[in-house]
Amino acid sequence: MQTHPTDPSPAQTYHYPVRLGIIGGGQLARMLALAALPLGCEVIVLENSPLSPAARLAPAALVGDWNDPATLLKLAERCDVITLENEFVNAAALAALEQAGHPVYPGAACLAVTQDKLTQKQTLQNAGLAVPRFRAVRSPAEVQAAAADFGWPLVLKTRRNGYDGKGNFTLRSAADLPAGWAALGGDRLELMVEEFWPFTRELAVIVTRARTGEAVLYPVVETIQQNHVCHVVKAPAEIPPEVAARATELAGRAVAAVGGVGSFGVEMFLSAAGALVINELAPRVHNSGHYTIEACVCSQFENHVRAVLGWPLGSPTMVAPAAVMLNLLGTVAAPGQPVGLVPALQQTGAHVHLYGKLTSGPGRKMGHVTALGGTLASALATAQRAAREISFGAK
Amino acid sequence: MQTHPTDPSPAQTYHYPVRLGIIGGGQLARMLALAALPLGCEVIVLENSPLSPAARLAPAALVGDWNDPATLLKLAERCDVITLENEFVNAAALAALEQAGHPVYPGAACLAVTQDKLTQKQTLQNAGLAVPRFRAVRSPAEVQAAAADFGWPLVLKTRRNGYDGKGNFTLRSAADLPAGWAALGGDRLELMVEEFWPFTRELAVIVTRARTGEAVLYPVVETIQQNHVCHVVKAPAEIPPEVAARATELAGRAVAAVGGVGSFGVEMFLSAAGALVINELAPRVHNSGHYTIEACVCSQFENHVRAVLGWPLGSPTMVAPAAVMLNLLGTVAAPGQPVGLVPALQQTGAHVHLYGKLTSGPGRKMGHVTALGGTLASALATAQRAAREISFGAK
Repeated sequence: MQTHPTDPSPAQTYHYPVRLGIIGGGQLARMLALAALPLGCEVIVLENSPLSPAARLAPAALVGDWNDPATLLKLAERCDVITLENEFVNAAALAALEQAGHPVYPGAACLAVTQDKLTQKQTLQNAGLAVPRFRAVRSPAEVQAAAADFGWPLVLKTRRNGYDGKGNFTLRSAADLPAGWAALGGDRLELMVEEFWPFTRELAVIVTRARTGEAVLYPVVETIQQNHVCHVVKAPAEIPPEVAARATELAGRAVAAVGGVGSFGVEMFLSAAGALVINELAPRVHNSGHYTIEACVCSQFENHVRAVLGWPLGSPTMVAPAAVMLNLLGTVAAPGQPVGLVPALQQTGAHVHLYGKLTSGPGRKMGHVTALGGTLASALATAQRAAREISFGAK
Repeated sequence: MQTHPTDPSPAQTYHYPVRLGIIGGGQLARMLALAALPLGCEVIVLENSPLSPAARLAPAALVGDWNDPATLLKLAERCDVITLENEFVNAAALAALEQAGHPVYPGAACLAVTQDKLTQKQTLQNAGLAVPRFRAVRSPAEVQAAAADFGWPLVLKTRRNGYDGKGNFTLRSAADLPAGWAALGGDRLELMVEEFWPFTRELAVIVTRARTGEAVLYPVVETIQQNHVCHVVKAPAEIPPEVAARATELAGRAVAAVGGVGSFGVEMFLSAAGALVINELAPRVHNSGHYTIEACVCSQFENHVRAVLGWPLGSPTMVAPAAVMLNLLGTVAAPGQPVGLVPALQQTGAHVHLYGKLTSGPGRKMGHVTALGGTLASALATAQRAAREISFGAK
């Protein structure tokens, strides 16, 4: 895939302050905005609520539907460059923006390929990158046929709009098929299946790729999920250097394969024998890279801003031997106000990030805590001391 | 001086997101806002222009005169806590806010004492802290009398509203007196004189003091001024540990003496013989502490937010052996757009901060660059490589 066809020179100068439009107003947009402002940017967020986490700090939020081409055009007319914080934006609407001459990064073609898990995997496979075996399925019979080739268990997935385990259903045997097919809406939505790849660890790498194709690669981290939601990130992952080198290379090639511009999260599986496959690629800043705010010379957020504006990338080098990030997840439907913030702030070295969400819910990402340390164990202990103090609603 | 009389418990819970009001909308307010947002705050800025650096990221800027009591009250009614980014706010108007039950930190009494350089020095002297000899002067004859006691040269100063050397006039001899008296408006404004203290270096310490009186003290830094404007900050200062210990103690006692709450900048003079005096104390976050954003576990900005909200303070420990901050100053009247940002961003390890000001001018603070390093020399070299690329208007 080529670099964006209308790629302007990185030396291009913009309006000042540079007007960066972000489609989506969640915590990722919020952290992007916090990184963009010191670089002399003004951020304009498009979200369907005026109370979104990022709209709370953007002086000019646009309230509207980011799948509506007219609304997107309104945003583009007020911005020098458009980027996005989620991969579910209508790729055709983005393509229309590009055709009207508005710079959009990552571009519509990249987004179209990555937002569909089937075409994403096909693209990675065509580039010679290892992925679990997969196949589109249009009926339960086709799932059965896939099982004959891949064996049980199988992972049934919606091709679009899945995240944090939503849109996935693990089929342990043929007996689970009717429930899985119904749960994912197989009669309405396009589904795919993947072999259940026998991983022992999940790894991730943030890759920031410039418009020029140059990229910086952050350290390989280990991610630990709970209920399919990223819960702990350990940076760097405790893996042999040889595995880290392969994971880094895989991640860099994956983002190049989809023609990505900006910071991307590449999630990988590692088997007991040391084999690696790409699980998924997110065409945006990623939860597995929040640790970079404190732990790296240049965060995934700052580097995303630099990349989409065509500016030189910063260093992804860590400033401490180890860092751990813990997500602060809601447990019950409750107001968004944190309980226990004061004791959490008493924990020296814990960096508490709250997203300002007005309501909490089970599994909802309300904030995170990062700690640096001389070892992963000490960073984890510091982060845990703070994170365990904070809850949302009932303790 | 006592802690604020209506001091609420640090465990007090606020509206969520916590609404922090900042009087003044310049770069200090902007960096305060960038630190407050991740702690779950919403920032409301009061400034006389809707295009101020901080208003560009506050979702709810209030445009108005911060010396007008009615405007301040309007701000207070929308906020949980009020703080300020400059020391020139009308202390009586702040006192009225406090009397109406609005938490204001630092408080009106602290501000009243510190914004008048005469009462500030008297307060420090009464607390037993070393300051240059000083005296109020109501006529040129009183300056002559002071010269008889202190000797020439003398520094003539306006008691209020001076900063960055504005409001100061050095009198080398009696011959300079008519020009100095006229330049500072001695017939209209209250003036004071100080002995010209024979310093060889200027040091500064950021002190963050909590509502409880607890304080954290940042490392002693050396500040190098050009044309009375802070130009270079070296952290830590290359001084004997014994001098650093005395400077730290002096700074902590100074902020306690004025009953400060929040981050304060304490500027000191060091003589060749190792004597120390306090030059000036700023009741707000300070240019000499910008390096703390990258160089310390918890920045002066985050700690200010923690202090004024009654939350526990974070660690002021440096995360690298050395850090250097260079101000990016305007040189000519020109648009605010930086020239040379791209080559500056190419310098690995340089953290570029731009304030988003629409216009530049001679000596105007447009941004700054910070670099960390294993030594001051390497941090300085990195910061210089980036800073020398950037200019505003003509190079």
